Amino acid sequence: MLDSLLRLNALYDFYGDLLTENQNKSFVYYYRYDYSLSEISDLIGISRQGVSDNLKRARNELESFEDKLGLYEKSLKVRQYINEIDQVKDHLKSKNTNKEFNEIMTLVEKLIEELNK
Amino acid sequence: MLDSLLRLNALYDFYGDLLTENQNKSFVYYYRYDYSLSEISDLIGISRQGVSDNLKRARNELESFEDKLGLYEKSLKVRQYINEIDQVKDHLKSKNTNKEFNEIMTLVEKLIEELNK
Repeated sequence: MLDSLLRLNALYDFYGDLLTENQNKSFVYYYRYDYSLSEISDLIGISRQGVSDNLKRARNELESFEDKLGLYEKSLKVRQYINEIDQVKDHLKSKNTNKEFNEIMTLVEKLIEELNK
Repeated sequence: MLDSLLRLNALYDFYGDLLTENQNKSFVYYYRYDYSLSEISDLIGISRQGVSDNLKRARNELESFEDKLGLYEKSLKVRQYINEIDQVKDHLKSKNTNKEFNEIMTLVEKLIEELNK
């Protein structure tokens, strides 16, 4: 449950700008400010059912954008390489041996390969 | 003219999956296979005007996605850092001096900063 909420919020960070204005508002009020459907209904001036429909469409749209563009999935991989580079880099800065230098170069190459896909 | 065609094709690489099926087909036949509007009209079974409308909508949609997500603009920056890393990296591999090691680390950090934006 928490995982799917975190995923949904991450998808919103990537694709929120592609949602309609009412989908966008409904999403933010519901998933970020924790308002109820009735409260959102009052705030943006559409029916409670309309808010519910907007939320459902927003979720479907976000998943559909991810299916087509895969930016979130890609960001997870890129982030993983970045974390590894960060770790090896710090180690390298303190020790500066040749083996580690090669390690970090391999990571940079993997990162570049990922970004070029 | 060539620049705007290259840009349009680059935008298609990023956002083509978000176009409708007929926009997608019209775009590929027109901009990649160099077919005429009449030929595309025959191929996908819609009017010549329909093809023209699809192309116009496709161009507008691609520019609109770029306005909202900016993936192409970001990719140009990332590519620039990657090219620099590539150059310094090769030089570093052949010389392996400390100054260049620091240079490449700075570049990796810039790249990471860009990706984290």
